[in-house]
Amino acid sequence: MLLHLSTWPEIEAALARSNAIVVPIGSNEQHGPTGLLGTDWLCPEIIAHEAQKGADLLVAPTFNIGMAQHHLGFPGTISLRPSTFIAAIGDWCRSLALHGFTRIYFLNGHGGNVATIEAAFSELYAEASFAKRPRGFSLKLRNWWDLPGVNALANRQFPTGHGSHATPSEIAVTQWAYPDAIKRADYAPPIAPTGPIREAADFRARYPDGRMGSDPAQATPEKGGELVKLAAEGLVKEVAAFAAEVSPAG
Amino acid sequence: MLLHLSTWPEIEAALARSNAIVVPIGSNEQHGPTGLLGTDWLCPEIIAHEAQKGADLLVAPTFNIGMAQHHLGFPGTISLRPSTFIAAIGDWCRSLALHGFTRIYFLNGHGGNVATIEAAFSELYAEASFAKRPRGFSLKLRNWWDLPGVNALANRQFPTGHGSHATPSEIAVTQWAYPDAIKRADYAPPIAPTGPIREAADFRARYPDGRMGSDPAQATPEKGGELVKLAAEGLVKEVAAFAAEVSPAG
Amino acid sequence: MLLHLSTWPEIEAALARSNAIVVPIGSNEQHGPTGLLGTDWLCPEIIAHEAQKGADLLVAPTFNIGMAQHHLGFPGTISLRPSTFIAAIGDWCRSLALHGFTRIYFLNGHGGNVATIEAAFSELYAEASFAKRPRGFSLKLRNWWDLPGVNALANRQFPTGHGSHATPSEIAVTQWAYPDAIKRADYAPPIAPTGPIREAADFRARYPDGRMGSDPAQATPEKGGELVKLAAEGLVKEVAAFAAEVSPAG
Amino acid sequence: MLLHLSTWPEIEAALARSNAIVVPIGSNEQHGPTGLLGTDWLCPEIIAHEAQKGADLLVAPTFNIGMAQHHLGFPGTISLRPSTFIAAIGDWCRSLALHGFTRIYFLNGHGGNVATIEAAFSELYAEASFAKRPRGFSLKLRNWWDLPGVNALANRQFPTGHGSHATPSEIAVTQWAYPDAIKRADYAPPIAPTGPIREAADFRARYPDGRMGSDPAQATPEKGGELVKLAAEGLVKEVAAFAAEVSPAG
Amino acid sequence: MLLHLSTWPEIEAALARSNAIVVPIGSNEQHGPTGLLGTDWLCPEIIAHEAQKGADLLVAPTFNIGMAQHHLGFPGTISLRPSTFIAAIGDWCRSLALHGFTRIYFLNGHGGNVATIEAAFSELYAEASFAKRPRGFSLKLRNWWDLPGVNALANRQFPTGHGSHATPSEIAVTQWAYPDAIKRADYAPPIAPTGPIREAADFRARYPDGRMGSDPAQATPEKGGELVKLAAEGLVKEVAAFAAEVSPAG
Amino acid sequence: MLLHLSTWPEIEAALARSNAIVVPIGSNEQHGPTGLLGTDWLCPEIIAHEAQKGADLLVAPTFNIGMAQHHLGFPGTISLRPSTFIAAIGDWCRSLALHGFTRIYFLNGHGGNVATIEAAFSELYAEASFAKRPRGFSLKLRNWWDLPGVNALANRQFPTGHGSHATPSEIAVTQWAYPDAIKRADYAPPIAPTGPIREAADFRARYPDGRMGSDPAQATPEKGGELVKLAAEGLVKEVAAFAAEVSPAG
Repeated sequence: MLLHLSTWPEIEAALARSNAIVVPIGSNEQHGPTGLLGTDWLCPEIIAHEAQKGADLLVAPTFNIGMAQHHLGFPGTISLRPSTFIAAIGDWCRSLALHGFTRIYFLNGHGGNVATIEAAFSELYAEASFAKRPRGFSLKLRNWWDLPGVNALANRQFPTGHGSHATPSEIAVTQWAYPDAIKRADYAPPIAPTGPIREAADFRARYPDGRMGSDPAQATPEKGGELVKLAAEGLVKEVAAFAAEVSPAG
Repeated sequence: MLLHLSTWPEIEAALARSNAIVVPIGSNEQHGPTGLLGTDWLCPEIIAHEAQKGADLLVAPTFNIGMAQHHLGFPGTISLRPSTFIAAIGDWCRSLALHGFTRIYFLNGHGGNVATIEAAFSELYAEASFAKRPRGFSLKLRNWWDLPGVNALANRQFPTGHGSHATPSEIAVTQWAYPDAIKRADYAPPIAPTGPIREAADFRARYPDGRMGSDPAQATPEKGGELVKLAAEGLVKEVAAFAAEVSPAG
Repeated sequence: MLLHLSTWPEIEAALARSNAIVVPIGSNEQHGPTGLLGTDWLCPEIIAHEAQKGADLLVAPTFNIGMAQHHLGFPGTISLRPSTFIAAIGDWCRSLALHGFTRIYFLNGHGGNVATIEAAFSELYAEASFAKRPRGFSLKLRNWWDLPGVNALANRQFPTGHGSHATPSEIAVTQWAYPDAIKRADYAPPIAPTGPIREAADFRARYPDGRMGSDPAQATPEKGGELVKLAAEGLVKEVAAFAAEVSPAG
Repeated sequence: MLLHLSTWPEIEAALARSNAIVVPIGSNEQHGPTGLLGTDWLCPEIIAHEAQKGADLLVAPTFNIGMAQHHLGFPGTISLRPSTFIAAIGDWCRSLALHGFTRIYFLNGHGGNVATIEAAFSELYAEASFAKRPRGFSLKLRNWWDLPGVNALANRQFPTGHGSHATPSEIAVTQWAYPDAIKRADYAPPIAPTGPIREAADFRARYPDGRMGSDPAQATPEKGGELVKLAAEGLVKEVAAFAAEVSPAG
Repeated sequence: MLLHLSTWPEIEAALARSNAIVVPIGSNEQHGPTGLLGTDWLCPEIIAHEAQKGADLLVAPTFNIGMAQHHLGFPGTISLRPSTFIAAIGDWCRSLALHGFTRIYFLNGHGGNVATIEAAFSELYAEASFAKRPRGFSLKLRNWWDLPGVNALANRQFPTGHGSHATPSEIAVTQWAYPDAIKRADYAPPIAPTGPIREAADFRARYPDGRMGSDPAQATPEKGGELVKLAAEGLVKEVAAFAAEVSPAG
Repeated sequence: MLLHLSTWPEIEAALARSNAIVVPIGSNEQHGPTGLLGTDWLCPEIIAHEAQKGADLLVAPTFNIGMAQHHLGFPGTISLRPSTFIAAIGDWCRSLALHGFTRIYFLNGHGGNVATIEAAFSELYAEASFAKRPRGFSLKLRNWWDLPGVNALANRQFPTGHGSHATPSEIAVTQWAYPDAIKRADYAPPIAPTGPIREAADFRARYPDGRMGSDPAQATPEKGGELVKLAAEGLVKEVAAFAAEVSPAG
């Protein structure tokens, strides 16, 4: 069930069945010569939308701009500063909590988001801690590739050249969902270099075409479909378990 | 051309043709008993995506959460506070400007966004004004219903009961694009009351089912299609004119 | 009754009679070759002070610095950034609300303030909406020229060359109140150009002497007096109606 | 010369003569049973306006709302939080500095403002320090009662019962300027108690009628006039010396 | 009793005895050719740690970075901006108050901190004032040199050349506590110049070796020991009196 | 070399030898029935101070309050909110960078700090990325237990009951450094429960005595000494490597 294609009475009814909601969250940033700029928000959106087709799972609109300051040297990247990102995640969660969503599950598509999302969670929890009261809702962050079995499948699909940015697995996922938007390029070198992540100028100097450690040429729509299927199954189970959790503080 | 389905080299190439970009912006909020929660971000997205099919127009990802504090009394609404909204619009524009987008056009789908978006523009301009330098980019806000001829068409389509929230015109647009998500309900009264907008508690007390002055039962997918067609044509022309503008300050 | 010339027991007594207060709000910014820098805060102050002479109307101190970033290219302009403006309006309203003022009416003298003041209202309402409680007070913004009949009078007085900045009507109002501060200059061209408003550098390049579309030479103290009289009468009636409003949320 | 009654070309001309400007700054807060709510911003305004009559001294609009959180328990008090106050002072100074004002002199009328104004100065200086560059302007804060000879005169005028809030000296200054707004009351006790300043609830419990250590019954317009005359003379001299200061960092 | 060398059950027990806590607060900044960069946080720490050896006094960890923007021109200085400092002091106090500390006493070692700490106190009090409730805790700031008798002793020890930064008294205190870190240098001139404090570039130009008005060559560990002894005694008495204070607002 | 026991000329000289600095960073929070409240900032301080005894390593003052919102239910915990923590880390780094420190290495003692410190790094990098310039400095975060070999040693020392909060390894480190502050208690159960971390109320309900998964009774000063020795050696090597890194962006 997609929240944005529902009415408020439908959401009211859904809340009577479950207090959990999934928020696909990612980033809009360069993904090398052939990866789509939307890759990191499209992947969790694709997986979550697929998952809700076969389960009573409520999916919020996609949080499509994240923390991608290091990619700003490449055209098309849009980034929030961490402080802005924290504020925005806060307002999303506060809004959802008002309606009775007590389990808010972020399905993330961008490694660079993780620290700031966790900091945003702490900022939200701290409001309750400083007020000496229970928060009333729980937050969970999961990268889609960390869903049960997904990393293992990607390692089998791409034993070398998976890398950490513009990876063949994420590109495969978007190829499966957007076959008309598959791009081709010659990669030089075939496997991109690796190293640390700092500001945008340093990043572009280290990683001239935007990839980090990856060989995206291995991506195929079929492999993407396998990843989506497995991730969607894992998501449904994880959210069900999360929804069933009991907080000792009420 | 959709930015999120493009690669960074494709955006680099697009920038060589035009310095303008369209950002669909809206809100995710209750739209009465039958309106989709996503109505206000879906409408500008639908129109902008339609427009780019027949023109060399670059469309950014949709800014889908806006200023909807007054709707927070209804399940499913997600809102940013104005201060968060200003910060986030700021980071979007600063990101786009880095790449050379000097004409950033926001196609808006939510009346409640207008004041804060304008304030965000002033915040961005003020950075340059306080630094005694040209800003280097221009910002434009347009509600889709204010595109040439669109309001007039809506008035012809819905001479009574158009209202100002959960209007038949915006619901018609989403019906055209999402025919599988058309909802039905009995409206009582047929035309909703009107009045001022304040905080969420006051809003829900004044407008019990969420509508303001509207009779959404008049919406049809066909009328929506007419509106989209006209709006998309207007958008292409307006953006072209905006891109061609010359700023005397450089 | 002027709040700043009253004692706290007098305000306590006034609150027993009415829960409404008028805050003149404007901007301190260039107004062309002959307009006073204070024009935009002087006009609402003049009108509100005049109005309280003949009615039981409480007038707060004048909020004299607003959002005028675009005028910063001209000496004497003082501006708040929108984010600062929102914070300050917030603290004013929170202070007044503590005392029981439940109807806070801003009489505005600067078009460039409107968006940010509305955003500030939303920021204040959002505090209540996110806390799931009634706000307890209502806010209203009115430009003095939008008081009943005032624009129509100005159009009769100045059928051409009224423009939108450094207008003959606002200059006439200050001439009526400060006859010793009437300035003269040759205007070239007689009617200033019009166009968009962006950052200060762009503004000064477009509007070299600061005027927008106006011919201030038409202003006279007499015309100003007529405007003040009409506006003051309208203000008294509007505030009375606002004070009498009933909020359904308590 | 009053900035708000001047035009921008007049300010441009004034800047050719002097780079200094005086900003009257105060607070709008309860001043006991008979003191005007505006006392703390009226006093520096009265003195600065008097001073500019006989000297080439440029006076900015009055910054009329300051840091008065402890007085919020009394009707009519309007306060900024320190963080808001710092932001607003910052924007005033940044605006003035853009025009070439390199000596900004705040004439203060409220003891409770001092710490926050000094913090605001440091915030402004820190911008330059963190950017490793000269600030380009100097800031000075002076309480009007600390101008040469003024405290000594007040001590002679009011050897007992001067106190620290709603003092006879500040009330005398407003009586001199606003003789029509002189209020009378019986004070019990004649001299109010003294003690620490904390939050508003604590303040009102300690100081039931708002006074701290003072006996305002001793105020007369004549004494006020003497204070204004002496303060105005001191102000002119101090600003001249400040304007003549040379900064070694340029 | 040092909080950081205690366990939470020990602090729970301490709270049953006293609701007061001492926070040593200072700055890490240049102190001339021979003064330690830590001088301003070491001095209050040394005194507070000495004091708790002979009394039931609870001492918090040292707040070691303060407002030292003017010293940023000298290597080793670390400064918070005032706005950051206010936020951090706020979170310290809110944390301590949660546990029941209702008397929080800051023993300060840096004159440049005073305004911002006072502003931080007002920011904290304002939270309660704007919420119309008692704050529940009281805050006190004391510079260690203002403890009873300390300034007088320093004046006897150093009748000339005490100055206001890198003073012989503060350097003597660190010499007593850190005899292995005593540094020597030739001072030219023996007594440093005096003047105003502005941004870092201005400061370094005025005070080339970092001292203000002082001759640190007079410092000895013995004199430092005398100062510590007297200050520690005063501290114990002051905190006891502060703990015993009764707030009329509860 | 300890920065706070050095003079500014000594730091100037140190900068001629190395551009790197170590900042011990931790948290002041409950550590179960026997762990010191300062454990998490004492551990990195102990290790860094030990390391600099035998190497040319510059150590900054300790950043002793971190992100510990979840521990606020236990007396003695002091926490910054993430937003405050980000601001403060930012000002520390900006200060150090001014002096030429281009490699700032944070040695961390609190797992709960990691996300926010990483977010703070991104906030700092983003300043440069949004300004389209190199940052000029690099930041590194290392938990002391992740230094080469340290986790392995702790696993050998404490094969069971190490846990994740109030661990025997961190308590052993403080026992080695502060033998007079060793505390004893009966632990029930011997090994504490494990689970998620949310707000303070939830935390205290899940972990009644504050421990998570640990049996601190196994700690001894000797084991602590072994950990410190190994960690100090690793620190020296890591900082040397970090200092020698070359950034491609200059």
